[in-house]
Amino acid sequence: MTTVARRRMGVEERKQQLIGVALELFSHRSPDDVSIDEIAAAAGISRPLVYHYFPGKQSLYEAALRRAADDLADRFVEPREGPLGARLLRVMERFFDFVEQHGPGFSALMRGGPAIGSSTATAMVSEVRQAAYEQIVAHLGVGRPPARLELVVRSWVSLAETTALLWLDGRRIPRAELELQLVHDFAALAAVSAAYDEEMAAILLRIVADEPADGAFGDLVDRLTRLGGVRPQP
Amino acid sequence: MTTVARRRMGVEERKQQLIGVALELFSHRSPDDVSIDEIAAAAGISRPLVYHYFPGKQSLYEAALRRAADDLADRFVEPREGPLGARLLRVMERFFDFVEQHGPGFSALMRGGPAIGSSTATAMVSEVRQAAYEQIVAHLGVGRPPARLELVVRSWVSLAETTALLWLDGRRIPRAELELQLVHDFAALAAVSAAYDEEMAAILLRIVADEPADGAFGDLVDRLTRLGGVRPQP
Repeated sequence: MTTVARRRMGVEERKQQLIGVALELFSHRSPDDVSIDEIAAAAGISRPLVYHYFPGKQSLYEAALRRAADDLADRFVEPREGPLGARLLRVMERFFDFVEQHGPGFSALMRGGPAIGSSTATAMVSEVRQAAYEQIVAHLGVGRPPARLELVVRSWVSLAETTALLWLDGRRIPRAELELQLVHDFAALAAVSAAYDEEMAAILLRIVADEPADGAFGDLVDRLTRLGGVRPQP
Repeated sequence: MTTVARRRMGVEERKQQLIGVALELFSHRSPDDVSIDEIAAAAGISRPLVYHYFPGKQSLYEAALRRAADDLADRFVEPREGPLGARLLRVMERFFDFVEQHGPGFSALMRGGPAIGSSTATAMVSEVRQAAYEQIVAHLGVGRPPARLELVVRSWVSLAETTALLWLDGRRIPRAELELQLVHDFAALAAVSAAYDEEMAAILLRIVADEPADGAFGDLVDRLTRLGGVRPQP
């Protein structure tokens, strides 16, 4: 049965199977440490047959990266309903699901290793960052984002990456805490920008007006207020 | 005279000259767009002679990167005196001096192009990030930083990179504003972390106790307080 099914697998189906097998292996070890032999063995086919579908290790890596990048970009898509804090929190939960699922592959990609530091890989990383940026901006209800808002959103996307990489390195802080913290970081970065710029202040006030007091943003303001002593001595 | 001086230049001196010439060219155009021919011409020597000192384009690029990385790491060194906000602001000023000086080279390196996306380059970037991290931690007067503090400091280092890259892309926001904003971002990220963790709260309160009311941190708190309406509706 298996042999028959295997023989009948079409080109595209076989390619997708190999990509799936590669991604599964990359979720346990860095792509740099996974050989074509292992991918072939895990897929139950010969090494030359893998090369028949993907001319080189790099092309299989890039195809796997393509699928992972599309998957990640999809996770930033969120209905434009309800308070922004809650939306961002759901996005962060899905982002950490992805990071947890692809652990070593994600780390290797973001840190740039020999196998995956190609310009194609770099371009795909930029593309996902751009997709994340555009999704967040769409949620803010701002047509053409001013430079300061663009900075806040792009900064936040890079913060989410850094935080996820550090989380993978030992998982010393529970991911749920980091997901919420990143939502708060967004509010904090926006507030810092708003403190010095009227346009940003107007955008921030509009966002916050829709937030419930018991939501992610309201809780932060309460806690910061209680922290109290944060105010420097006069 | 020039010829005599040139002939007498020692190997190390010549190498340093070529590195300086390369960095000067990379401050105007991406390393990927600068050829060995141009470097040779700018140094006033022949192309084969460049190859005599650096066996390939990559080795000259890496030597230039080495010098730039050391230079950048040095700029994070700051005397441990006075309020933290003022120290961080001086560090950010020197960081932006570096970014301004090395513009296209810095962008290309951080975005990872074909010429400079090598694993050596990646390792040097990590090394500078680590040096920056260690310098900042030393200023916080914390022996072994807890995981949450490590996260705040590493996040902030990545934020400084993202902000600088976005600044280079059109310079739409004055750099002095961004330097101050990054100092505030540090305080904001620490405050978010402190809002949910007692150990971080104790560290933050200790830092802030030394801040003058008219310093970088005090000014932020004043402005945020004035922003007022940020508090969500009950």
